[in-house]
Amino acid sequence: MTVLFEKVCFIGMGLIASSLARVMRREHLAGKIVGVARTEETAKKALALNIVDEMFDDVATAVENADLVMLCTPVGSFHKIMTQASAFLKDGCIVSDVGSVKQRVLSSVMPLIPKGVFFVPAHPVAGTEKSGPENGFDTLFEGRWGIITPCEKSSLESVEKIRTLWEKAGMNVEEMSAKRHDAVMAIVSHVPHLIAYTIVQTAIGMEQDGQEEVIRFSAGGFRDFTRIAGADPVMWRDIFLENTDAVLDVLERFSTDLEKMKRAIIDANGDVLQKTFAHSRQVRRQVVEALQDQPENEKRLLQKR
Amino acid sequence: MTVLFEKVCFIGMGLIASSLARVMRREHLAGKIVGVARTEETAKKALALNIVDEMFDDVATAVENADLVMLCTPVGSFHKIMTQASAFLKDGCIVSDVGSVKQRVLSSVMPLIPKGVFFVPAHPVAGTEKSGPENGFDTLFEGRWGIITPCEKSSLESVEKIRTLWEKAGMNVEEMSAKRHDAVMAIVSHVPHLIAYTIVQTAIGMEQDGQEEVIRFSAGGFRDFTRIAGADPVMWRDIFLENTDAVLDVLERFSTDLEKMKRAIIDANGDVLQKTFAHSRQVRRQVVEALQDQPENEKRLLQKR
Repeated sequence: MTVLFEKVCFIGMGLIASSLARVMRREHLAGKIVGVARTEETAKKALALNIVDEMFDDVATAVENADLVMLCTPVGSFHKIMTQASAFLKDGCIVSDVGSVKQRVLSSVMPLIPKGVFFVPAHPVAGTEKSGPENGFDTLFEGRWGIITPCEKSSLESVEKIRTLWEKAGMNVEEMSAKRHDAVMAIVSHVPHLIAYTIVQTAIGMEQDGQEEVIRFSAGGFRDFTRIAGADPVMWRDIFLENTDAVLDVLERFSTDLEKMKRAIIDANGDVLQKTFAHSRQVRRQVVEALQDQPENEKRLLQKR
Repeated sequence: MTVLFEKVCFIGMGLIASSLARVMRREHLAGKIVGVARTEETAKKALALNIVDEMFDDVATAVENADLVMLCTPVGSFHKIMTQASAFLKDGCIVSDVGSVKQRVLSSVMPLIPKGVFFVPAHPVAGTEKSGPENGFDTLFEGRWGIITPCEKSSLESVEKIRTLWEKAGMNVEEMSAKRHDAVMAIVSHVPHLIAYTIVQTAIGMEQDGQEEVIRFSAGGFRDFTRIAGADPVMWRDIFLENTDAVLDVLERFSTDLEKMKRAIIDANGDVLQKTFAHSRQVRRQVVEALQDQPENEKRLLQKR
């Protein structure tokens, strides 16, 4: 079998890039893998892990002659990176990304895609709260959703190649519009993260007011929130700066729903509480049945802690 | 070594009772274990699991001659149960509980404790979202906090016995006031659960508005919320009906904090977002360091799914 891409260039060598590079090695999908990292330390780690053949300091040199340029940095940096890369992309090169926001990525990256180069925006919906190349593993994507949001700069063939790539990583690949992607992600990922960050802040505030027991007793639910809140701050900053409208829409709905729950508590309305909780539990069962909750992946993740 | 209690009576045979009964068997802490369950099905399961020696239909018969009566039903039912049990408790019997709320438990149970009987309110801060005796396991409590909130009806000796019991289960036992317990639990457990239930409701609402992808794509954070939201509806209804004041106080703080985050998003204030997220991440590290996050327990839990 021939490789899928002769030369692959990763921009950013974090958890996702590192995990995908491992998949490429395992499946022999790339002739050569190179990368660009923001820090010398990350570059050294990537080389030591043998997940790349070569690391470069600057984007222009790294992307030269690449068949696939994979943007794996926080989404807010895509525009700047493409400004540096654009003139050096070879004819037929595919640019893709792993960003968690799609509409603004499209509007910032598309104008910088030269004629003859293809752009296939994608989002592998997977991750852990650990960042850095050393935390990657080749089964991170298994059984998860990979979303491709094709645009005017995507060709059928380039979309197929990116689909094949993520399928080789074990993902269930689905295509949808960038707008739909952003709305779905706002509710299933972005707002949950914002809420997790916020409740941790509330706890910190209470500790500062003399409630110093919070962290010690964090077993009962709070712990799950801190796990979510352990995710990379820059990546998440960018997500909220880029998916503003969809996030604010979901936040509005959430605040209304929370107000209802608060009202039920004030009114001591046990029926409303119980019905709501029972309904939520059903949804939990659906999530488990939808195989989105994967013991194997989680166990691996826990072992890595 | 002599047993800690000649006869133990569990009222309610759910996850906690089942797990504690397994500990009692393993550590030979009880001469005889009996139980009361709300349904025939649960009673049969408990007997089949051999975690009890006998199951009874009515509370009065079950508690007869018991040295320890352990209330393991939702906290809202304690008053009624004690009304049934009170006259049949033997002299020197210790009544204890595992409820997640303590102030209202004290005020509803204390008046029903006869002279010569002791009451030691306690709360093992542990659990999974699975309920029912078949989901119990004897390491559920290991390394977690066990909180005892002694009251006027507690003797030094009765508190020591309950402390020994939970220490044998592997818990780090701490004493505090019922009021303090309720405030700490509101932030580390009760409000996080309420928020988790609410965000699941918001997602359901969006699905009903035509966003039918939510559950399919639940990997990215939402999944962790549905896990929390999978907990027992009646137990949680009672918690919110019983710990109203502390929960409303924390909710108020949370709403203020969420408003700040929303404001930062509207203002595209990346600095505020990044600093907040970085701070939350530090807290996550503290939680992990505080050993409240226990891979062994979690792995066991996942294997049981």
